[in-house]
This record gives sequence, C-alpha cells and structure tokens, in this order.
Amino acid sequence: MNAPLSAHQAISHAAMRHPPQAMLDELRAAFGPQFSNAAAVCAQHGRDESAFDVPPPGGVVFAQSTQDVQRLLQIAARYAVPVIPFGVGSSLEGHLLAVQGGISVDMGRMNQVLAIHDADLTVTVQPGVTRKQLNEAVKSAGLFFPIDPGADASIGGMCATRASGTNAVRYGTMRENVLALEVVTASGDAIRTGTGAKKSSAGYDLTRLMVGSEGTLGVITEITLKLYPLPEAIMAATCAFDDLADAVNTTIQIIQLGIPIARCELLDGNTVRMVNQHSKLGLAEGPMMLMEFHGSPAGVQEQIAAVQEIVADNRGHGFQWAQTPEERTRLWTARHNAYFAGVQSRPGCRCITTDTCVPISRLADALLDSVQEATEAGIPYFMVGHVGDGNFHMGYLIDPASATERETAERLNSQLVSRALRLGGTCTGEHGIGLHKMDFLIAEVGTGAVDMMRTIKQALDPLNILNPGKIFTLRQG
Amino acid sequence: MNAPLSAHQAISHAAMRHPPQAMLDELRAAFGPQFSNAAAVCAQHGRDESAFDVPPPGGVVFAQSTQDVQRLLQIAARYAVPVIPFGVGSSLEGHLLAVQGGISVDMGRMNQVLAIHDADLTVTVQPGVTRKQLNEAVKSAGLFFPIDPGADASIGGMCATRASGTNAVRYGTMRENVLALEVVTASGDAIRTGTGAKKSSAGYDLTRLMVGSEGTLGVITEITLKLYPLPEAIMAATCAFDDLADAVNTTIQIIQLGIPIARCELLDGNTVRMVNQHSKLGLAEGPMMLMEFHGSPAGVQEQIAAVQEIVADNRGHGFQWAQTPEERTRLWTARHNAYFAGVQSRPGCRCITTDTCVPISRLADALLDSVQEATEAGIPYFMVGHVGDGNFHMGYLIDPASATERETAERLNSQLVSRALRLGGTCTGEHGIGLHKMDFLIAEVGTGAVDMMRTIKQALDPLNILNPGKIFTLRQG
Repeated sequence: MNAPLSAHQAISHAAMRHPPQAMLDELRAAFGPQFSNAAAVCAQHGRDESAFDVPPPGGVVFAQSTQDVQRLLQIAARYAVPVIPFGVGSSLEGHLLAVQGGISVDMGRMNQVLAIHDADLTVTVQPGVTRKQLNEAVKSAGLFFPIDPGADASIGGMCATRASGTNAVRYGTMRENVLALEVVTASGDAIRTGTGAKKSSAGYDLTRLMVGSEGTLGVITEITLKLYPLPEAIMAATCAFDDLADAVNTTIQIIQLGIPIARCELLDGNTVRMVNQHSKLGLAEGPMMLMEFHGSPAGVQEQIAAVQEIVADNRGHGFQWAQTPEERTRLWTARHNAYFAGVQSRPGCRCITTDTCVPISRLADALLDSVQEATEAGIPYFMVGHVGDGNFHMGYLIDPASATERETAERLNSQLVSRALRLGGTCTGEHGIGLHKMDFLIAEVGTGAVDMMRTIKQALDPLNILNPGKIFTLRQG
Repeated sequence: MNAPLSAHQAISHAAMRHPPQAMLDELRAAFGPQFSNAAAVCAQHGRDESAFDVPPPGGVVFAQSTQDVQRLLQIAARYAVPVIPFGVGSSLEGHLLAVQGGISVDMGRMNQVLAIHDADLTVTVQPGVTRKQLNEAVKSAGLFFPIDPGADASIGGMCATRASGTNAVRYGTMRENVLALEVVTASGDAIRTGTGAKKSSAGYDLTRLMVGSEGTLGVITEITLKLYPLPEAIMAATCAFDDLADAVNTTIQIIQLGIPIARCELLDGNTVRMVNQHSKLGLAEGPMMLMEFHGSPAGVQEQIAAVQEIVADNRGHGFQWAQTPEERTRLWTARHNAYFAGVQSRPGCRCITTDTCVPISRLADALLDSVQEATEAGIPYFMVGHVGDGNFHMGYLIDPASATERETAERLNSQLVSRALRLGGTCTGEHGIGLHKMDFLIAEVGTGAVDMMRTIKQALDPLNILNPGKIFTLRQG
C-alpha cells in the first residue's frame, strides 16, 4: 500500500493521480460488486454534456448509503486520490471529468425519497433522486418542486451546480430552495448543515457554501428541499414577435412591473424552427415568448391581462393558450428539449453552451449583440433564455473536427461573457464554472474573492481530493 | 511597537487582547478625530440590547470609507488585536461586545445610499444605512425593502446577523435579499462577492457565507440588495382569539394552504396589554393575530377571503381593518415596539430574549408549551411571533439584581431551545448566536458542522482578530 501524500505533496504534484493497484484492490474488497473499473463503466462516468475529452476515472463506486461514501473518502484520503461525484452526467461545463484522475462515485443508487413533510412543505431526498422522480413522488400530496434544468438531473447534481431553470423567475434557484444538507467531508465525516426550520441565523451558512461548490468541498448525501402547493390555476401561453428586440423589451417591462410570472422564456426564430422539427410542433417560426402564470383563477387572469397589454405595446401577436395540462406538458417538454433539438439539427455536431445572466435592464444589450455576433460569424446556433431572470443561453453547434469552428465558438463565448461582465452580470447563471470558466470567474469576482475560495478549499480539503481542478486552480504549495 | 503575534500565539493566548499604547498612538495618527478612546465613547460601543456586562473596547474608529476599514485591519493585524464592527448597537446576543478586548469600528458614518437601480429592482448602500433610511430613499421610485427587524438596524448589521422580521414569510430574510457584498478581509484586502445579476453559479457563494457570519469573517463595507415594487394594494388587519392555540392553528393552516400572506404575526394577551399601554392603542386584550396582505386589489381580496374563512373555522373574531396608511403605520410601529413595550412594563428590568424557529407543523407544540412554562415560572414575559415562518420570541423581563430570576430565565430559554431542536427547528431564527447560544449551536448542527465553521474561520482569519469569541470558541492551537 502506498503511503498517503501530504497536502503539500498532493497540491504540488503532477496533475494526474491515478488510483494505484493497492487502492483498487482495497476498493474491490470494500465494495464488492458496487465497485467496477471495467473500461465501459469508467468511460460512461468520464463524460458529461460538455465538449471536453479527458481520460476517464480509474474506477467507479456505486454508493448505496452515506456510509459507503464515508468509507470511500477514508480510503481516498489515505491514497490522496481524487473522488468525483456523479449524478446523471448532465453537467455542461466538465464538472465530473477526471482531469486529475481518481474514482467516480456514482450516486444514482441513492435514489430514495426519504420523507415528504407535506404539512411543512418540505421533502428529504437522497442525492440520486431526479427532479422528475421527485415531482412524481410529491404530486399526490398536492405539491411540486419547481427547479427544472433542461435535463432530468439528479437533485444532488442540481445542488452542486446551484441549478435553476424556467421557474426560477418566481420560485428562485437551488440557492433559495435547499433547506439543509448532509455532506460527507474530505476526511470522511458526515455533517449536517441545517434543520427543518424555514429560516435560521445559527452560524455560518454551510448549506449555501455547499450549494454551488461543484463537489469540491464535500459529497452531498442527503437533501431537504422546500416544496410548493400546486397552484390552483395554471395557464401557459406563447406569443410571437417580428423583432427579437420587442420580445426582450416585453420581458424587461413584465419584470420591472413586478408581475409574479412563473415562467418567462424566450426563443429566437432559429431555435423555434429547431424545436418544431424535433418535437413536431407547429409554432410560428419567429422570436417567441413562452410564459406560464400560477395563482388563483382571478390572480392568473389579472397577470394575463397585464402581460397582454405589455405584449401589445411591444408589437407582439398571435397569443396561443395551452388549454389543457397535456398541451402544457407538450409545450414545456419541447422547451426543455431545445438543447437536444439544437444538437440534432446538425448531425454529428458538438455544442458549446453559454450561460450569462445580467441585470434585467441590460438584457437587450447583452442578448441582441450576442445573437448578432453569432449570426455574423455564420456558425449554427440556438438561443434560449430564462429571460425573466436576465439569463440566456446560446448553443454554438460546431463540427468537432473543425478547429476553426471550435475557435470561433470560443471567441463568441468569450465576447459574450465579457459583454455580460461589462454590463454588471455573471459568467454563469446556472451551469457553473467547471473546467471552462475559471478565467471568467477571476474576471468576474476578482483575484481576492477567488483567493478566498481557494483558502476555504485548502482548509476543508487539504489533500485536494474532492473533485480537484474545478472552479479554480490551486496555488502551488 | 510590539511584534505581531503568530496565529498560534494569538489563538492560544489569554482571552483579553487590549490594544497596546503603541497601537492607540498609531490609530490616532492614522485616523485623527475619527479615532477616540474616551471612556464614554468606548462604553457606548461596548453594549448592545443583550443582558451581558463586559468591558468596553479599547477604542473606536469611525470609518468613513472602505479604505479606512482596510487601514484599520492592517494595523490590527500587526498587533493581533480584535476589530469589532458596530452598526447601531441593536444586536440582542452580545455580538458587538469586546469579550477579548480590541477596537470597535463604528460603521455609522458610512451611511450613503450609493445607487438606486430602479429598473433592476436593486440598490447599493453603505453598511451604516438603516432600514428606515433605505425605505425613505427608495420610496419615490415606487420601491421598498421588506426586511424589518424590530429596531431601526443598520443594513450592515442586518447582513451580519442574517436578520429578518415581519415580512420574511413572503419576501425571505437577508439570506434571500442580499445580491452582493464588498467585504474587507482579516488581511485588509477588499473583495467583492457577487455582481448585479439576480442569480449566478459562479463559484462558492461568498455572499451567503458572509451573511450571518456576525463580523467574524470580514467587515462588510458595501451591500447590493433586492428591492420590490410597492404593492398596488395593501391591507392590514388584526383579529382576536379566546385561545392562543386557535391562533397558532390558524397560522399553520394559512401557510399550509400557500396563501401568499405578507405578514403573519401573533401576540399573546399579555403582550397585547403591554403594547396597548406603550403605544396607546385600544386593542382587545387577548391573543391577537396581526396580518398584512400585498398584491393587486383583486388578489388582496382573494387572500383576505381565504384567511377570514380559516380564522372563522378556528373561532377567531373581531376582524379590525387598518383602512389608511396612517393606521397601518401606527399598528406596525406598535408591533415593532413590542420589545420596548415589554421592557417598559417592568421598570428597571433587563430582557432575556429567545428566538427559536420550527417547522410550521410543530409551531403549536413549540409555542404553547413555552408560554405555559413561562406562566408557571411566574416570571414576567412578552411573546411575539413571526409565526408564519414558525419563528417566535419570548422576552423574559428579569430584575437584573436577582440571580434567581436570571437563572429561571436561562432555564426557561434552555427548555425552549431544547424543545425547538427536538421538533426539528433552530435555536435562532434571526438574532444570531453571538455569545449566548454557542452550546445550542453545537446541539443543533453537531460538532462536525461547528468544526467546519471553525476551520473556515481559522483559514480566513488566522490571527483571530475579526470579532473573536462569537458563534463558537476556537480550538486551542
């Protein structure tokens, strides 16, 4: 058995820390059939939806309990070998890639909804529960969980990336909707970060330190979430615009008036065409807003009346109502599949996704210039936006064999992020930093703030074994 | 000039670290009339609304800029002498007491509203701005900031304790409403923790790590907050109950039905009597709910109708509407003054305040037993609750000369907190840990989580100069 590395050695060491044979033997002895280092299993855990190619992990542990995760971390600490949490593999910025080698810990078998506290509007789940599974489980109690990234992501993964989605404009993101966590630390201890109370001033907010930490500070093993009563009335609608700028300005005015819209999405004409093709819809192929209203029947009617007036003022037209729950589901499924619709519109392509978020008053500047630049560059793209939050995504659909296209996409992304930062925004609204945005993070918050993050990381994970190489590079010891 | 202490020496040293004469001379040279160590000034900065008596700080710096705070921290680091941020002195758990000696930094002169971004519904302020000052400043833009602890606290102090108040049931606490901070670290660097974007997944959530850190991780020098459009319609009402349990059950049902009530407060009969006396109101002297509804005119009417039905089902009666803004202000001012009404009801008393928060379904258990215990103990008390959040306060009004009364109050507080923890709640909903609740914090989150807090503290403040001795005791080096 190799002697464990010291923190200093681990950090200043070569990038790759593959598990030695002795560690693999120990994992096999500890986990039996819950461990595999078969090539196919490793490969499957070595890629996400990003466009990065890196070596797969050296093995996969399929955790079935908090104790499994603790045991794995204890072994990993002894060998100073990285541990990388894996949910469903839907991350977009390379979060779960084994850039420094190590062991992937697949949380997919920890997929129990542990307790629905319907009287308190909360639920406690294991991290492998997916968002759709969760909503199925709480539906009969008249409740729902609003956070909905495009993919059917795991709740643990959604915590790790501080995910949001189409409902965030009204219900907030994972930041606002996680009440408490159980987390396994770098030393293999399991800690709890909160209680079932809706608010608390009890010490440092470890819950929110962990939410968005991308697996670099601990492995999340249990999550207590807020739930919401299913609205009494729900109405969804689309409306069309001739000019993208009119749609953006409509959004800005809806938000500035404080209308409690539940979903406020924007697709450009190009993207509507892709969605039509993928989901067999007959939407008018121009800039389109896709909205949803939640509330009492009268409250929803009020919101709709106010929004219709704003839409008309901005030359919007062709309001189409999704009258039935089935129509609504069809529409939102199509929206959630926009990413796949984009990717399938160019067979064999890879997608470079962007994810900026700006103050709502700067949305027109941020979005319109970015679309124009993509158009001028002549690269296929899609554009979808959680525009009610000032957040939008461009997906550049590149030929992976073309270095020119990749460079163009990276240049466009860089211009788009720089513009968002100039406008007072962030380089990532909901996808996270991962491998791809480390320099942008520094540009956004400054070296002082990133140094504080590094200090916290090094204090809580001195061997740098928790998903190393993500969010920032460490100072050389 | 004394040589600076190492981290090890500083932490394992005696509790008291008074500023040496050389440091006082240096502060006077650096800050001129912005520095004082006059006895009266020090005494004024050595007490808050808690019942603790400790020695005052050894001097006070009146900061006028971020650079002032940086300069102070740089000097303090050289001498390893504590720095304790001071807002308006309204903290309740001894947060700003100089338990290890040191220099108080009064933020009251940094009281500028720097920028109102009305189109983005945000505002950037200096930490000495008070909540009432802020609301005056943004009113003409049709906006308001909802967080309202009883006192006219400073925004910096409200960040530091993760404050909330009567509107939190609808609008959240400081946790949800701070977008970004500028913070001066232990080494005197100024960092920024976020941007103007409404949401972000860019690295660790330093904003929320700082919010609620009680001055132990940095001195907050600038704050960007969310604002809200003034509601189109506002209605406030009181209603009476013969039985406290009926009022609690009314609250539980309002929340479980998801009615978007803006304020949902409860006072027991005892407290209504004190408020009547203090604020010259003629409220019926029994258990009383105090509510407010925000929304469109029709939406407010819908909420009211739903609530009235629940109140009637629970034998509530005597609905009284505050028809005019003036009546509303009078009512809420009386509510905000409940603490002072309580204290003045027993001349010469000191108040031991409690602050638990439980899951809403457990509110009746938590609140009714606590009131019964106080009644049985025969100690004067008041009880007010942000019950829509599951949060309530008992204030035990003790004779400071009576050791028995102090012991009784501490025993009642201990029983009340233990009960809240058993019911899945927290030892503090909004006042913070300070000096008073360190053991309760350990009981609540466990030694593992408190150890993680300590590790973060020691990494970010190795000399332990930022408001030391609060939230937890440090491991001896």
